[in-house]
Amino acid sequence: MEGVVSVGEFVTQNQQRFQDELFRLLEIPSVSTDPERKGEVVRCAGEVARQMGQAGLQKVQVTETGGHPLVYGEWLGAAGQPTVLIYGHYDVQPEDPVDLWTSPPFTPTIRDGKVFARGATDDKGQFIAHIKAIEALMKSEGKLPVNVKVVIEGEEEIGSRHLAPFLEKNREMLQADVLVVSDSAMFAPGKPSIVYGLRGLAYVQVDIKGADSDLHSGVFGGAVPNPGFELCKLVAQLKDDQERITVPGFYDKVIDLTPQERADYARLPFDAEEFRKELNVPGLSGEVGWTPLEQRSGRPTLEINGMLCGWTGPGAKTVLPNKAMVKISCRLVPNQDPEEIAQMLADHIKKLCPPTVECQVTSLHGGKPWLTPRQHPALDCANRAVEAVFGEQALFVREGGSIPIVVDFQTILGLPGLLVGFGLNTENLHAPDEHFDLGNYQAGIRLSVELLRQLSSYQKP
Amino acid sequence: MEGVVSVGEFVTQNQQRFQDELFRLLEIPSVSTDPERKGEVVRCAGEVARQMGQAGLQKVQVTETGGHPLVYGEWLGAAGQPTVLIYGHYDVQPEDPVDLWTSPPFTPTIRDGKVFARGATDDKGQFIAHIKAIEALMKSEGKLPVNVKVVIEGEEEIGSRHLAPFLEKNREMLQADVLVVSDSAMFAPGKPSIVYGLRGLAYVQVDIKGADSDLHSGVFGGAVPNPGFELCKLVAQLKDDQERITVPGFYDKVIDLTPQERADYARLPFDAEEFRKELNVPGLSGEVGWTPLEQRSGRPTLEINGMLCGWTGPGAKTVLPNKAMVKISCRLVPNQDPEEIAQMLADHIKKLCPPTVECQVTSLHGGKPWLTPRQHPALDCANRAVEAVFGEQALFVREGGSIPIVVDFQTILGLPGLLVGFGLNTENLHAPDEHFDLGNYQAGIRLSVELLRQLSSYQKP
Repeated sequence: MEGVVSVGEFVTQNQQRFQDELFRLLEIPSVSTDPERKGEVVRCAGEVARQMGQAGLQKVQVTETGGHPLVYGEWLGAAGQPTVLIYGHYDVQPEDPVDLWTSPPFTPTIRDGKVFARGATDDKGQFIAHIKAIEALMKSEGKLPVNVKVVIEGEEEIGSRHLAPFLEKNREMLQADVLVVSDSAMFAPGKPSIVYGLRGLAYVQVDIKGADSDLHSGVFGGAVPNPGFELCKLVAQLKDDQERITVPGFYDKVIDLTPQERADYARLPFDAEEFRKELNVPGLSGEVGWTPLEQRSGRPTLEINGMLCGWTGPGAKTVLPNKAMVKISCRLVPNQDPEEIAQMLADHIKKLCPPTVECQVTSLHGGKPWLTPRQHPALDCANRAVEAVFGEQALFVREGGSIPIVVDFQTILGLPGLLVGFGLNTENLHAPDEHFDLGNYQAGIRLSVELLRQLSSYQKP
Repeated sequence: MEGVVSVGEFVTQNQQRFQDELFRLLEIPSVSTDPERKGEVVRCAGEVARQMGQAGLQKVQVTETGGHPLVYGEWLGAAGQPTVLIYGHYDVQPEDPVDLWTSPPFTPTIRDGKVFARGATDDKGQFIAHIKAIEALMKSEGKLPVNVKVVIEGEEEIGSRHLAPFLEKNREMLQADVLVVSDSAMFAPGKPSIVYGLRGLAYVQVDIKGADSDLHSGVFGGAVPNPGFELCKLVAQLKDDQERITVPGFYDKVIDLTPQERADYARLPFDAEEFRKELNVPGLSGEVGWTPLEQRSGRPTLEINGMLCGWTGPGAKTVLPNKAMVKISCRLVPNQDPEEIAQMLADHIKKLCPPTVECQVTSLHGGKPWLTPRQHPALDCANRAVEAVFGEQALFVREGGSIPIVVDFQTILGLPGLLVGFGLNTENLHAPDEHFDLGNYQAGIRLSVELLRQLSSYQKP
């Protein structure tokens, strides 16, 4: 008979099963950007729904969105208590370059207490911890301390384009008091962190075209523009020698970090030289005048995400390519607007492009930056939960990544957000050998249990 | 009974068969740079040997070289006459990007009197014309007007690395008076040209490495060097705003075009605006102070041949790539030395590379530039042959492409070279939809017949 063990005992007793069920999710290559994996994405949604139903959530449904499906479930039996909306995403980044993985990306493999698989830390291992916490509470206590609504989407890695319409359409059903998201990292192992700021994103692709086809570099080289070279010249002009972005207006709406925030940053346990060594990079770089931590989360960036031009196979092909492509993305900080920045970037790039070639700039993806007031009471609840499970105060930090949908939850549903992550930044998210610490998976389940308890005392500010 | 028709009639009567036999060569994907096509390269050598034997050449042999095989044959029955050494190559460039071909690259397809296939003009269609000319002479007249030695190699597109050793090893066997190569183009349709200069080549690959693996552009972006961006900055510095190459020492050994040569260039039928329109490129570019024709053949260049970095698939992957690659090649003019230039380029690139990333420069390919004195008597023989077949004087030009082996024939065997091409520069060599004019194939066979006749009166200068 269920309910005879405490919730903590239940989590302990079901450790292996909870792990097996995480692995079932990790085995599904739910790569949302790849049209050929559409069936796998749908299969993954079904498995998420199955585990949500098993946890005791009600009205579990796989909802068509026009893109990849979204999974919803709820438990509303805590009359008079606050309602917590839990968000996660079951889609993952492409596994490319697959030859750099030690074990196959969709065959979860344990090494050193970590599970290696695409999506392990971003975000399957994190969101499913909440589902297991709900299961543990339901099966040991028969109920939850708060009302819960769960939204797990399948398009986070491609811009969550159907989530906002879903929120708009289901405002009533999704009414809640606080949003809980676990798609972020602990600042350091054993240092759970509550994230109160996220960067936004403006992602464009630039296509430069010269002649109508590739040409012989001997016969034509010297008189015909080379799109690869023009691309390099153009990209090189996007930052100055201080690594400041040269796009006119780019910094106009940036809210600089306050002296208090910079002092907070300085107190975080971080050693730049150790960080450099961990990455095995010869040196760090970045905008002059800011520390690496500030550069990585409190300042906007401009990065090359990909480039392709001409012959990239083995050996020497003497071709004068007729086109070149570069993917460029900017991480944004409050109050930069992704559409404005993409437009500024496109205008600037077109202005830099010489008249000897054609230049097309396509916006691929965007998301607004996000910030929650540092003194919001929901953050105190989270801090108490962290204290109860980890025995120490949470670190309050801004993160460099983007979870554009947190902005949507705030804008559309009016929800304050509470970002409590169980992952680690060293877990190779978006890269080969992505992994997730299985100890943190268990701790995440316990933290979620405690968070739901603490949020029962949450009062709107 | 053979010998009852004239050589001209024989060429006419065998037009369809000569075309079918060219197609048999074009059907074989003899891509020398592709290790997976090794078997196809060998198969192509066999077919070349078969057609040489059929033409009446003797001692036909497919010779192992340590790389791709070389095909040799000879006919030495013209006692007291000069010996002509004919060179060609049966290997071809990769067909990439294959999706831009109108018909499959290894299915010869006729449109508008042209055969479309990889290798059609470079160089299968050109060298086999000489073999067919030999067959026509042998089968109509029973003999050739000169002694002939034929060398058809399989590594021209990858630097002919085993040809020079073959020449060194077989100096005696290959003794000759003049080298004939048809791997160049007519200056314009119906304007047969004798090429007296070729550019050389120095081809390097630059690999830039940052961290040990790809990183999340949000979590790490801003503080960690981006190899793609560093690559662009580095490449952009390789030319100044006059499009002069900035590598120190690069121009030191360049012999500038003489006023006479510049006047020759100015007399060639060429319209820059028509050239631009043909290529459908918005504008021409190139080193300031020289005409497009001079830029394309009389001046050295620096071109991007390929670039690869990060995510190049569809959509937006928010990755901070850990490596970037660029292939860079310089076309060289006399007396630039490919090894010296590759070294200067490597030194300069390493100097430009910031200490935050690792930079490796690998030399992939090289070839010396080449020039034959404009007044050499062999060129007069070729001019007379052109006059006999085309009814007008040949144009004497320098070409922008590289045939490094011509240098080897000159250096090792002491042979003056005579470059008589039947191709056209508009025939998309090294690019999708490569093709060869079948009228020029027939004219090429007739020109080769006439050239062998004219060379019977050749006297060493």
